[in-house]
Amino acid sequence: MAGAEDVTLVSLRKKMADFARERDWDQFHSPRNLLLALVGEVGELSEIFQWKGEVPKGLPDWEEEEKQHLGEELSDVLLYLVRLSDMCGVDLGKAALRKLELNALKYPVHRCKGSSKKHTLYSNDNDSVNEDRNSGTSEGALKY
Amino acid sequence: MAGAEDVTLVSLRKKMADFARERDWDQFHSPRNLLLALVGEVGELSEIFQWKGEVPKGLPDWEEEEKQHLGEELSDVLLYLVRLSDMCGVDLGKAALRKLELNALKYPVHRCKGSSKKHTLYSNDNDSVNEDRNSGTSEGALKY
Amino acid sequence: MAGAEDVTLVSLRKKMADFARERDWDQFHSPRNLLLALVGEVGELSEIFQWKGEVPKGLPDWEEEEKQHLGEELSDVLLYLVRLSDMCGVDLGKAALRKLELNALKYPVHRCKGSSKKHTLYSNDNDSVNEDRNSGTSEGALKY
Amino acid sequence: MAGAEDVTLVSLRKKMADFARERDWDQFHSPRNLLLALVGEVGELSEIFQWKGEVPKGLPDWEEEEKQHLGEELSDVLLYLVRLSDMCGVDLGKAALRKLELNALKYPVHRCKGSSKKHTLYSNDNDSVNEDRNSGTSEGALKY
Repeated sequence: MAGAEDVTLVSLRKKMADFARERDWDQFHSPRNLLLALVGEVGELSEIFQWKGEVPKGLPDWEEEEKQHLGEELSDVLLYLVRLSDMCGVDLGKAALRKLELNALKYPVHRCKGSSKKHTLYSNDNDSVNEDRNSGTSEGALKY
Repeated sequence: MAGAEDVTLVSLRKKMADFARERDWDQFHSPRNLLLALVGEVGELSEIFQWKGEVPKGLPDWEEEEKQHLGEELSDVLLYLVRLSDMCGVDLGKAALRKLELNALKYPVHRCKGSSKKHTLYSNDNDSVNEDRNSGTSEGALKY
Repeated sequence: MAGAEDVTLVSLRKKMADFARERDWDQFHSPRNLLLALVGEVGELSEIFQWKGEVPKGLPDWEEEEKQHLGEELSDVLLYLVRLSDMCGVDLGKAALRKLELNALKYPVHRCKGSSKKHTLYSNDNDSVNEDRNSGTSEGALKY
Repeated sequence: MAGAEDVTLVSLRKKMADFARERDWDQFHSPRNLLLALVGEVGELSEIFQWKGEVPKGLPDWEEEEKQHLGEELSDVLLYLVRLSDMCGVDLGKAALRKLELNALKYPVHRCKGSSKKHTLYSNDNDSVNEDRNSGTSEGALKY
């Protein structure tokens, strides 16, 4: 598997496009079809974790076969996401870089350190934490 | 946005890791926390498409602002997927390349052309299409 | 199937509780385990619709076997939802009635007729439609 | 909230149908539109749990406001599920009772007690547990 280190989103987009064209599958790849296929894969990913309770980082106790299966489901989500983006005319790599920049603005290091509060909980003019009327909780949730 | 063409999964993984470490957010990034955050983002992605009926490829009638918003939600799914993979010890780029190879074996071009049937519907020794007892339908569904 | 007309959420809750207790499955039914199981079932539901493009109401062209399968997946989502609510101490029937009342307040008939705009698009003091800064679109989306 | 104890799926179906008709919303309620709206609500439900790590049954430490919010999201999933079933011509209450019967056959008490293994892991002619080639794990997953 030479070159795995350098896998780009553009290369995956091209591989998926070739794959579909060779099989005459472009006809099935409408945005909402692909979105539902993505949801299906997220469901399969969730099934892997569903009865496990909390699992530690790195999955130290998982068997190799199970981690392999996990890698396949993570990949399925990625591949449909890449294909969906392509069919929507969105440059996913470019969009992701832009989103990372937006996140850095929304969550400045000195304000967010060690807190999982949603960015709307950080007021703009001082350091007090506002009530979040959407989440209905003082705990909130960091949401990109 | 120089270099967007070359965005690699490894570079996104590193950026996400830096982002979390700088904010002391590693403590929140357990596999199941990240998985639920991913599901949340898939929900936001779905909301964009929910009342639209079928939409054509390329989204020709969408306003620029809406496509921007779509790019952000697609990115959110990607970024959590990259982070989840990292926290599970899965090399997502490598796994995706491997999955593409598996898909090519499961869906040989000469057998699948123009059909959206699930791979289990293709019998191994001839070209007849078997009944798929799981999907409960003769139509089936191409599932990676 | 006598009494199907009268299936209550309370009766389903009790049946699920009995089912789990008889099998000593309460130990697996933590809130987040059940939530991920629910996501898995939503994925299976999505798979049924994924390659179909838009489908008309009533599913006139679906075979009986496929509709049966659909009924099973819809039920799986319902049963996990009922069980999740129970394990969270939420009275689902009561909550649903309350939510219907909230929705009626959020979407008054004379303001919403024939529009799928999100409720935040309806201003409180006049009939003009505000820009929705969240959706980034003038189209918006009715969201309960 | 008189009668909450007796909330039936049929009554919710009727309330949803009235709600949509009064607002001229039937035009938006195609099966796939409703399915994507359901996925959106499952996303919002997941957001409530996403940064919490494992939470104990009954949510003893949650504030009343947060439990209220949870009840609303659980209800949103239920209401769209009821509406989706209706638009697909599926009698959800009847289907759920039938699924409960199927589950009882798939998971006989004496075979499943205390195990979360998937039903395909139980062989039909003896009590030995088979390897599950799909899940790629000896742990498996109870899946209805």
